Amino acid sequence: MVLSTGDASEIQACALFAEFVAKEAGEMIRRAIVAEKVFDLKSSVVDLVTETDKAVETFIIDSLKSRYPDHRFIGEESVAGGIKHDLTDAPTWIIDPIDGTTNFVHTFPCVAVSIGFSVEKQLVAGIIFHVMAEEMYTAVKGHGAFCNGLPIKVSQARTLSGALVITEVGSARDPLRMDAFYKNFKAVLATDAHGIRAMGSAAINMCMVARGAGDICYEYGIHCWDIAAGAVIITEAGGYICDPTGAELDQMSRRFVGGATKEICTQLCGILTHLTLERD
Amino acid sequence: MVLSTGDASEIQACALFAEFVAKEAGEMIRRAIVAEKVFDLKSSVVDLVTETDKAVETFIIDSLKSRYPDHRFIGEESVAGGIKHDLTDAPTWIIDPIDGTTNFVHTFPCVAVSIGFSVEKQLVAGIIFHVMAEEMYTAVKGHGAFCNGLPIKVSQARTLSGALVITEVGSARDPLRMDAFYKNFKAVLATDAHGIRAMGSAAINMCMVARGAGDICYEYGIHCWDIAAGAVIITEAGGYICDPTGAELDQMSRRFVGGATKEICTQLCGILTHLTLERD
Repeated sequence: MVLSTGDASEIQACALFAEFVAKEAGEMIRRAIVAEKVFDLKSSVVDLVTETDKAVETFIIDSLKSRYPDHRFIGEESVAGGIKHDLTDAPTWIIDPIDGTTNFVHTFPCVAVSIGFSVEKQLVAGIIFHVMAEEMYTAVKGHGAFCNGLPIKVSQARTLSGALVITEVGSARDPLRMDAFYKNFKAVLATDAHGIRAMGSAAINMCMVARGAGDICYEYGIHCWDIAAGAVIITEAGGYICDPTGAELDQMSRRFVGGATKEICTQLCGILTHLTLERD
Repeated sequence: MVLSTGDASEIQACALFAEFVAKEAGEMIRRAIVAEKVFDLKSSVVDLVTETDKAVETFIIDSLKSRYPDHRFIGEESVAGGIKHDLTDAPTWIIDPIDGTTNFVHTFPCVAVSIGFSVEKQLVAGIIFHVMAEEMYTAVKGHGAFCNGLPIKVSQARTLSGALVITEVGSARDPLRMDAFYKNFKAVLATDAHGIRAMGSAAINMCMVARGAGDICYEYGIHCWDIAAGAVIITEAGGYICDPTGAELDQMSRRFVGGATKEICTQLCGILTHLTLERD
């Protein structure tokens, strides 16, 4: 069966199944975090991370494939392993098995399973499981956003003044990237924003914006598997997403702005120093 | 009865009672956050914050006073109201009713009740309730640190390279403070630290270090009520605390370093640009 963006009930069924898969994947991660605490040796921790990342992605892809053999998959680990990942019109699952890998290494309790679903190159569903908080964020295009089944909505913030802003340093440390990071950090604080938060998981950051706990988030250097699910969850919670230039979001461009309103996003886009990164 | 630092069982009884008080206080905060979500108007939110902060502190002080009428109290709200707060040899409770007030305003889920206990000017017990995560962190000097009754311990990190570092921008935005903040941020990242996290609650940051989820935290501009409980919890979890100069912690000096080991703290102290702030 060829799926189109109009097949609402089929897309909802896909999302519901992915939610169960994400929950199971989260349990695998939770068990690995407990194991990490027990075997507190750095080298084995690194092995454990790689192994867990791969095992969780394999589990997610195998589970979805068993139900949807014709669907395509873009996964962080598969891409790292050299598998090509063009986004086509086909139904495609975009997967980050452990969003917040550095947190996972350190047992910092912000790690998430992120599963986005794209049909005809449009993001139509997003599932993010905030593992340690046991919060399941879900959204299907046109049907609202939820946390553990309860509807969520963005804040009403229209300006950065008084806003809670979320971003990340990221893992790259080259001078160009760091220079832009500091300029942007300063520009945000100069707007009289209430504060800046950084929890180390792009997916969880986006969920915080979707539930109105943060007013806006932005990041350079992330990947399509970090963005896909959260983009749907923010828009379905009533928020706005775009490229940091203010243009339409290009999910392969490795940069992202998501906020409560178009107004706050436009203000942020106007003060950011932009980086052009190698595309996904 | 005059309490001395040697009265272990009496201090443990005090801490246990404070734990129940913190739990109740946390429930007041949780209810206020739900109310905030319902009445989503900025002006009433500000009123709600002030009211909740005061109501929670009054509840905590009244509860402790009813059991310990001779004890003294240093509370954030009482100090803001002009009550003097010299630290004496008397048993003294040092209270932050809502640590992470900006988070509370935004319903960002990192808010904590922080209660420290000092006898003969020494911190002997700390209780931090991470409200939305329902995690109760407790420590009595000489008796270990716990989260929801299970023992916790710091990581083994001896160097900033590969470490997860936690700090905050804070609420002050004067050029001197911001300049030091950026210098310190850059200095930390130049050590090849894995990342920097900022959750907006000094108390929760310290608990993250105590449970080994972060390797070190530092902050300038905080107050004794932000530090007191966390300082006991970190040391009882096997960690090290000091002034950012490397000297012994002065809990009234409004600056703090707490880490997994003395070695990582010493390294951090060596690269920080220090600020001298008006004392508590």
